[in-house]
Amino acid sequence: MGDTIYFEDVLIGDRVEFGPLTISREEIIAFAREYDAQPFHLSDEAAAQTHFGSLSASGWHSTAFFMKMFVTHMQASGHQEASLGAIGVDELRWLKPVRPGDTLRGTSEAVEKKLSRSRPEMGIVKSRAALINQNDETVMTMMPIAMFRTRPA
Amino acid sequence: MGDTIYFEDVLIGDRVEFGPLTISREEIIAFAREYDAQPFHLSDEAAAQTHFGSLSASGWHSTAFFMKMFVTHMQASGHQEASLGAIGVDELRWLKPVRPGDTLRGTSEAVEKKLSRSRPEMGIVKSRAALINQNDETVMTMMPIAMFRTRPA
Repeated sequence: MGDTIYFEDVLIGDRVEFGPLTISREEIIAFAREYDAQPFHLSDEAAAQTHFGSLSASGWHSTAFFMKMFVTHMQASGHQEASLGAIGVDELRWLKPVRPGDTLRGTSEAVEKKLSRSRPEMGIVKSRAALINQNDETVMTMMPIAMFRTRPA
Repeated sequence: MGDTIYFEDVLIGDRVEFGPLTISREEIIAFAREYDAQPFHLSDEAAAQTHFGSLSASGWHSTAFFMKMFVTHMQASGHQEASLGAIGVDELRWLKPVRPGDTLRGTSEAVEKKLSRSRPEMGIVKSRAALINQNDETVMTMMPIAMFRTRPA
């Protein structure tokens, strides 16, 4: 664990990379069965009938892969103690399918920060985030809006 | 299964409701352990140290709950055959925590539609979606952008 990184310590332009994470066919199908049982997330045969061509992960599984790598990185680098969760995400885009065997990594860059008006003990950071595969293709982008504790006086 | 609902059959203002789904403590913790292991998604004790107050589901789990109910509804009502997945989501907002024992339902209303410029066999529908709990509190909102097959000539 590093030192706690408070809102004041986040600088615009700060960029982090995290991962990698290799995705299995089994987990793609298990997640889809539970949460997104559309045929192209369940079998190659059904996906071949669509523009997906072969099995691809649910887009919501891709966001979960991103979060898994991001939280692991955040906890290793001292961000966890100051994290207060997220308000939301703007401009989430699924650009390419995530396939069995893909090895993903993530990036996030702080692009905007402001103190909370209603809660002075919190600040809000907007980031530009990307999920990238082993061929350097960006498979997903989004703009998360997260809350951090401000440094205690 | 109903008749297949193609892009042409989606009308602006069409509104669907789906669910309910009751959320357990065990699934909140299991999802968080796998994908979003922040302390406030893992135990009441850790959440009590934050503005969450007690255990709450990962926001990415909330999107998965929404999707589970939506896909079930879509498959029952004949939308599945024409669905080609989603391009992305705008303005995702986590407004209130989802807690163990909450019973959620979802709503979605078509607000915009257009033919794909690059792929005439597809149309794009933007919707206003909400996840609502048993106290009629809206816990999450988003604007999904989905693709549908156009009706075969």
